[in-house]
Amino acid sequence: MELKNLISSFFLLFLLVGISSTTAASTGKIKVRRPCKRLVFYFHDIIYNGKNSKNATSAIVGAPAWGNRTIMAGQSHFGDLVVFDDPITLDNNLHSTPVGRAQGFYLYDQKDIFTAWLGFSFVFNSTQHKGSINFAGADPLMNKTRDISVVGGTGDFFMARGIATLMTDAFEGEVYFRLRVDIKLYECW
Amino acid sequence: MELKNLISSFFLLFLLVGISSTTAASTGKIKVRRPCKRLVFYFHDIIYNGKNSKNATSAIVGAPAWGNRTIMAGQSHFGDLVVFDDPITLDNNLHSTPVGRAQGFYLYDQKDIFTAWLGFSFVFNSTQHKGSINFAGADPLMNKTRDISVVGGTGDFFMARGIATLMTDAFEGEVYFRLRVDIKLYECW
Amino acid sequence: MELKNLISSFFLLFLLVGISSTTAASTGKIKVRRPCKRLVFYFHDIIYNGKNSKNATSAIVGAPAWGNRTIMAGQSHFGDLVVFDDPITLDNNLHSTPVGRAQGFYLYDQKDIFTAWLGFSFVFNSTQHKGSINFAGADPLMNKTRDISVVGGTGDFFMARGIATLMTDAFEGEVYFRLRVDIKLYECW
Repeated sequence: MELKNLISSFFLLFLLVGISSTTAASTGKIKVRRPCKRLVFYFHDIIYNGKNSKNATSAIVGAPAWGNRTIMAGQSHFGDLVVFDDPITLDNNLHSTPVGRAQGFYLYDQKDIFTAWLGFSFVFNSTQHKGSINFAGADPLMNKTRDISVVGGTGDFFMARGIATLMTDAFEGEVYFRLRVDIKLYECW
Repeated sequence: MELKNLISSFFLLFLLVGISSTTAASTGKIKVRRPCKRLVFYFHDIIYNGKNSKNATSAIVGAPAWGNRTIMAGQSHFGDLVVFDDPITLDNNLHSTPVGRAQGFYLYDQKDIFTAWLGFSFVFNSTQHKGSINFAGADPLMNKTRDISVVGGTGDFFMARGIATLMTDAFEGEVYFRLRVDIKLYECW
Repeated sequence: MELKNLISSFFLLFLLVGISSTTAASTGKIKVRRPCKRLVFYFHDIIYNGKNSKNATSAIVGAPAWGNRTIMAGQSHFGDLVVFDDPITLDNNLHSTPVGRAQGFYLYDQKDIFTAWLGFSFVFNSTQHKGSINFAGADPLMNKTRDISVVGGTGDFFMARGIATLMTDAFEGEVYFRLRVDIKLYECW
């Protein structure tokens, strides 16, 4: 009887541990340091320079007193504020069919080295993904990789939180750059 | 005896499931897909156009090279950056007593359709609400409704997270618009 | 036997409560209203005024139609957008060795009183701290203290959320101010 008791207790134990996990899982929120969702994209930025209005996907809209809105300012572009609407692709080819748009702004905020601050969204409206992922954070862009925050999401990315690792995949003068974005969500609902 | 054992086991089971729930509840953080708090407001934006400085609640402070700061730029206002301090009301009447202020910025970020990116706060300081709610996200404003993220809150909205559904309730030329904001918090502390 | 049963049940009860807590703790996410991490810093802002380019840590990059980029605009600086790269120190001395940089932007967004909206990061790269903390929120800067949101973090501050209480520690004309920042994280991973 006592053994039986012990067995039933252990059974109960496992059952309850199971329930405990299930309770957590039913909220859809997984809180371990392993991403609950991972997505890799590229996005492409072509800055307006006074001559490329047809192809440009971004434009300088703010600049310090020593700058203007068609040429990036001196001192590592400090103070330049850029608004963008960049195509998102699955591979690193600018001409691939976009799967969404990266929309928002970046601003250069250090005088002695290229560093930016980003506030933007990935906006999806395809059969694959519907909804948006919202990002904010510092981008010390001379580093090989750098992390920004996923601060929220909507639609398929409802309430998401996580980290996006940025990598500059190409940089051509002051007109074109391409970022690889490795999105790791740690809170999924 | 065995039956009694089984009964006590089940009793224990329910008790523990109860404790498990209580543990979650005691943190004040509710994680189901039903809002733990819901609030509906309207806010009213009157853009400075060079002539309405008395009534204007917002102003263009950044624009692309082809734009200026008293007339919204061509190409769907792409690149226009607007700072605002808009009254929040409980109904859709601009002249109702404000219950708070919507303060922050929006920027237009698409050339072929009106789309904006928002970073702003609802700031309350009344008997009803004290504190702030912080928002960020993409606003494809030609859609009937669109969702942005509640990325945080302070005071009565301490640590809040959620979704705000925006709806354009009125739009008069390029000077006045009114948004209905349906705030659904999914993380309440 | 029955007593033994009861005892074993209670033992099981405590064991399971223990497991339940452990499960929560193992995610590193503590959800009580007591900070899981607390940090106090100062940061120092010297605004570019056309004459101090060597010392300036920030610059006006956007302004309303009635303003410019070397003098703060009238009407409580409404519409002025400032990009900054400010040193972070452990004490209130501008000349102390910086432990990191505060980088991002603030904009003044009320006409009748000084109020700002902030989007920025604390960026650390020392033996003490590596990583970034991302902030957003309203700063009604005439209040003695005011709270903004910690919306995310990276590195040592992976996935952090919390509240930062700002206090103006010094304010010298329109060129220098110093903020004390009391960071209280309530979600630690």
